[in-house]
Amino acid sequence: MPSTDRLQAIASATCSANLPTKGPNGLPLNTETEPPILMTQERAKASFNPRELTYYLDGGKSQTEDVEAIMRSIERDPLFNNEKYYDLTKDQLRELTVQRVAALATHVSSSPQILHKRFAITAIADPGTGTRTGVHYGLFLGSVRGSGTAEQFSYWVNKGAVELKRFFGCFSMTELGHGSNVAGLETTATFDSDTDEFIINTPNLAATKWWIGGAAHTATHTVCFARLIVNGKDHGVKSFVVPLRNTDNWSLKPGIAIGDIGKKMGRDGIDNGWIQFTNVRIPRQFMLMRFSKVDREGNVTEPPLAQLAYGALITGRVSMAADSFYAASKFLTIAIRYAAVRRQFSSSPGQQETAILDYPLHQRRLLPRLAYTYAMNAAAAELYHLYDVASSQLETVDVTDKNALVTAVNDIKELFAVSAGVKSFCTWATSDIIDECRQACGGHGYSGYNGFGQGYADWVVNCTWEGDNNILTLSMGRSLIQTAIAVRKGTSVGGASEYLSRHAVLASSRLGERSLEDPAVLIEAWESASSLLLMNAADAYEKELVKFNGNVAAAMEKISQARFETARVHTRLYIIKAFFNRIENSKNSVPANVTDILVKVAILFALWSIEQDTGLFLRSKFLTDKDVDTVTSLVDEYNLKVREQAIPLTDAFNYSDYFLNSPIGSFDGNVYKHYFEKVVRQNPNYNAMAPYFEKVAAPFFFRKEEEPIDLEALGE
Amino acid sequence: MPSTDRLQAIASATCSANLPTKGPNGLPLNTETEPPILMTQERAKASFNPRELTYYLDGGKSQTEDVEAIMRSIERDPLFNNEKYYDLTKDQLRELTVQRVAALATHVSSSPQILHKRFAITAIADPGTGTRTGVHYGLFLGSVRGSGTAEQFSYWVNKGAVELKRFFGCFSMTELGHGSNVAGLETTATFDSDTDEFIINTPNLAATKWWIGGAAHTATHTVCFARLIVNGKDHGVKSFVVPLRNTDNWSLKPGIAIGDIGKKMGRDGIDNGWIQFTNVRIPRQFMLMRFSKVDREGNVTEPPLAQLAYGALITGRVSMAADSFYAASKFLTIAIRYAAVRRQFSSSPGQQETAILDYPLHQRRLLPRLAYTYAMNAAAAELYHLYDVASSQLETVDVTDKNALVTAVNDIKELFAVSAGVKSFCTWATSDIIDECRQACGGHGYSGYNGFGQGYADWVVNCTWEGDNNILTLSMGRSLIQTAIAVRKGTSVGGASEYLSRHAVLASSRLGERSLEDPAVLIEAWESASSLLLMNAADAYEKELVKFNGNVAAAMEKISQARFETARVHTRLYIIKAFFNRIENSKNSVPANVTDILVKVAILFALWSIEQDTGLFLRSKFLTDKDVDTVTSLVDEYNLKVREQAIPLTDAFNYSDYFLNSPIGSFDGNVYKHYFEKVVRQNPNYNAMAPYFEKVAAPFFFRKEEEPIDLEALGE
Repeated sequence: MPSTDRLQAIASATCSANLPTKGPNGLPLNTETEPPILMTQERAKASFNPRELTYYLDGGKSQTEDVEAIMRSIERDPLFNNEKYYDLTKDQLRELTVQRVAALATHVSSSPQILHKRFAITAIADPGTGTRTGVHYGLFLGSVRGSGTAEQFSYWVNKGAVELKRFFGCFSMTELGHGSNVAGLETTATFDSDTDEFIINTPNLAATKWWIGGAAHTATHTVCFARLIVNGKDHGVKSFVVPLRNTDNWSLKPGIAIGDIGKKMGRDGIDNGWIQFTNVRIPRQFMLMRFSKVDREGNVTEPPLAQLAYGALITGRVSMAADSFYAASKFLTIAIRYAAVRRQFSSSPGQQETAILDYPLHQRRLLPRLAYTYAMNAAAAELYHLYDVASSQLETVDVTDKNALVTAVNDIKELFAVSAGVKSFCTWATSDIIDECRQACGGHGYSGYNGFGQGYADWVVNCTWEGDNNILTLSMGRSLIQTAIAVRKGTSVGGASEYLSRHAVLASSRLGERSLEDPAVLIEAWESASSLLLMNAADAYEKELVKFNGNVAAAMEKISQARFETARVHTRLYIIKAFFNRIENSKNSVPANVTDILVKVAILFALWSIEQDTGLFLRSKFLTDKDVDTVTSLVDEYNLKVREQAIPLTDAFNYSDYFLNSPIGSFDGNVYKHYFEKVVRQNPNYNAMAPYFEKVAAPFFFRKEEEPIDLEALGE
Repeated sequence: MPSTDRLQAIASATCSANLPTKGPNGLPLNTETEPPILMTQERAKASFNPRELTYYLDGGKSQTEDVEAIMRSIERDPLFNNEKYYDLTKDQLRELTVQRVAALATHVSSSPQILHKRFAITAIADPGTGTRTGVHYGLFLGSVRGSGTAEQFSYWVNKGAVELKRFFGCFSMTELGHGSNVAGLETTATFDSDTDEFIINTPNLAATKWWIGGAAHTATHTVCFARLIVNGKDHGVKSFVVPLRNTDNWSLKPGIAIGDIGKKMGRDGIDNGWIQFTNVRIPRQFMLMRFSKVDREGNVTEPPLAQLAYGALITGRVSMAADSFYAASKFLTIAIRYAAVRRQFSSSPGQQETAILDYPLHQRRLLPRLAYTYAMNAAAAELYHLYDVASSQLETVDVTDKNALVTAVNDIKELFAVSAGVKSFCTWATSDIIDECRQACGGHGYSGYNGFGQGYADWVVNCTWEGDNNILTLSMGRSLIQTAIAVRKGTSVGGASEYLSRHAVLASSRLGERSLEDPAVLIEAWESASSLLLMNAADAYEKELVKFNGNVAAAMEKISQARFETARVHTRLYIIKAFFNRIENSKNSVPANVTDILVKVAILFALWSIEQDTGLFLRSKFLTDKDVDTVTSLVDEYNLKVREQAIPLTDAFNYSDYFLNSPIGSFDGNVYKHYFEKVVRQNPNYNAMAPYFEKVAAPFFFRKEEEPIDLEALGE
């Protein structure tokens, strides 16, 4: 159902007073016919207008309209028909995906904001297409723009890099033997001063570029990360544009070997490949020289600050917070709608069965995760804001102005730290949410056609790429502990770590007689827990530092678990705060009944988060044993409040059936009918024998007994 | 490498003293050539003979030899070649699977123990084949044997149900609208006394039998669960053998409609189908009548005890504990081997990079899960023992002897309770382990060829089928709370709940000055935590019972979260105890150095389990804040001890490269070479253009600018 019709349907369902009590043909409702009636009843319970909540989520009415315009254009495009999506083989998917990339590329003249939205929304329906487009526009072109000079950027744009005419770029960073440790990459770029060229070379099998999206079939050029070697000196890893294929016929350039990485866990629409360079020569000017430079004489200028080299990666990391919100909200919509109309078991024999969303355990499985998803929306918005500020500074900074660079880099550092935590814990949370939603749909969650299997397989790579979550988390933990130590020495901190400056007060803060339903109290609970954890980690670090005779790396390694935990708890606090802040800041622009439900959702998230970490709050003494029991009761209570509005809360995510692509999550609640019909449409030849029956099954089932060996006839 | 050669290689590697320091051609080792050397070094560290540990895991030397004989026969069978496994489409996989089922069926004359082992071992290499075989032998034939009379069993065996000649059975329990609540199934079996037949009918769409493994293409007969209706009276759900297809040509019988369920998240080798019955008539004698009966006059005899009806399901549930061990150990072998040879980052610039298994966080991600896997092995063995006792009683019980039946049913009840917890938490733990192992292999974990994606997708259905984990857990929690209440009233309990009889003592037990490295202390810690949790849950239940005026169902529903938690913690205790017990009981049959490492592994498991649940132990007061810090230090310490022996501990699982089917988990550690070669073998046409290039990519990349519209020529 297209977006606008859908919203009208929500509105009319919400107003409907007279609900049918009979099914088609006037027969009483039964398991088959009742679900859509139940769904209508759920919508009638709405205490607010879901459309207003959609505006809150999108950031305003005009943003919602932008999103809907994009959604509608995708839904209507026959090329984006996803009816057969779950049955496509890898090869079919790759062929379809390149067509969709081409279709997306026709939108490059949109404003950057709208284009970015289109990419993100396309990825909801088809993550592979999103990524295959992203490797060119985000990674290749983003690198050329971020690390190249203005002239270099223009040069490649003129070659077709924006319009994708005889041009497709990829991003060759990862190698078979090196991923997270970019500084350890082994591909070399050796300067040949005689010819004014770089020689790009893969020195051993493990240095083969690996996982390169777009390389196997599509890319004509790559940004290649390689060690700059000048006169035998290794200057570390820099980036170079290397032509891979001839742009007139897509044949490989000399010295380039490219292969297909083949089958992956998910995202099979992307033609990931491997690349080996055998002494491939490129002009010196193909090195991206905004920050690092090599001149005609082989003089090397190092970048003023190392962080500047990897700026292109941050965009992906920031997007992943919003992507987490999109993916989590999509699968929660499916699971919660299904739970509202699926009945199973009755509390006493003979009674009507209970809708599974009414079971306390089912509520606990889905509703706090729904709350988390609303919180991710707020965290993603805050992160985008940080990103906009930092990246516009970076783009306009005069690289010869050292002071301006330092400011830009400090903002980038804060962005790196915050985005590392938000990216890691939101992508992990979303993996967990997709998985829990699948399990909450029982066997039907395992069907290919309800989308969870594909959705999970496509999603989880977010936890690994563009910064492995564990490594990001450890690095974030390191910088948090350093901040904690600085704070104790009197340095003042702002931003996400501001609360650490109140660590002494927080150390003695207790719930006391205050209410656990007060947002300020909940934030304080998390601040005190996080602050205590960080101060303890700082103590532990300082002790280890003495033991290791001042070896920072060894001491930090030793307290890895504490680093991980501090990053985890600090990020949870960040997300909780972001959610409450966004509600507070939206108060004037959203109706009171919307604020009201949002506050309940946020309280549920904060309380449930405490319940999952009771050890933390008992140790910080913020809570007593009895308070912990209160938390559990309150989680039950808030689950009930949120359960009451669960369908409107998922309707507000504003996904049409096209974007959900999951019959058990159908808007109208007619889940069994849609699901059955989908299965039959995709597998129409029923009642027929298996295609392989005659070939392999019949010879077995109809086999004859082997004749017994006649031993007598064989004599002695 | 076949099993026996593999073990010789382990032995020779372990003894090797002179390790090469140069690679092929006498060049220094590099990222490509060093890994196999590192692996050999790891094996040289073994403090015990891994073969002895294999005997412990398998339950003795002769069991290991049985397992190896089966493994060898599978590896050598060309039909079981898995080289192309990860690239097979659903249709190819289904065709191959039916051939493999046929091959497995030729082994039915083996002893039941050996046959069962063969099924389980086949499922390690190919879960779909395991299940597709299991739906016939385990579910169909198991039901006929368990719920049918001896004559009925003989009858169907004579029809070909053991040899699979013109016969394949499936198991029609689940419907589109009902899964967990078997008592709510809607298919009817109405007795027609005129013809002495039952009429099997699907009354509405939601009553369509759904997910029926084997139905889509293979089954000639099914055990169908349907409501017995006699003279208008509903006697609840019973089971009936219903012919589905004509056994001479596999065409459908009249009144049967069968369709293909199509694409699933995993296990696409199984031809799951849906079935609708339209007034299908079967002779009265096709009802399985061991416990329930309908005679010629339509008199219904109800089973003496309801639990007897679902006995066939328990076998699957018990197997899943062992299957969890197999799957978890397989993926841990891969991830730990990879971690031992993968280097990434160095602690200071210029230094050699560190093997990732040497990072504390990486150890924490993998080694406690390795410990959990060893614990699952012990829990599975204990559960099998319970099962053997209970099921042999059930098979031989005289159904007219009420007392004997009660004894049998009590044993079955204990088995149901224990198996519910072990099945649920071991299958969940294994999902988590596969996922964590995948992430621990970074991007390479996402490759189709390293097996994690397929492995996860195939595995996770275990959390849903044959008893949804959440529902089993809640039901277990209910019975634990009932037991706790009974204990407080003076009833004595044995078995897994025995410790509850010591609840008063446990309530005041504290760690004090005792060591957290003492198995008895660790068990006591868990007993006291579990006991406290259960007694609190019992209190909460009794309070709710008063509030709900004695409504048991409502009170139990209200404390769902407590039920879940008690089942979770009780099961963790059960698994920890089972592990320590198995080590203790094996002391005389395994060398001391094997016992020594096992004890370390078990202590790690118990300590890590505490660390994940600190709130529990702080509330039980068994541990102080300071003790909790000690637990964390000890987890670090025991991770190091286990890390030292990590490769021998995984070698002891005794998987050949065939069973792992994951080049980055190769026995010889030559991971980059094997992985690269695997990718190239499966994707050999490299350097070629994409098959779809001319068709869909070229028209886009080589497109011409549309001619501008000549507005002037159009005039005004």
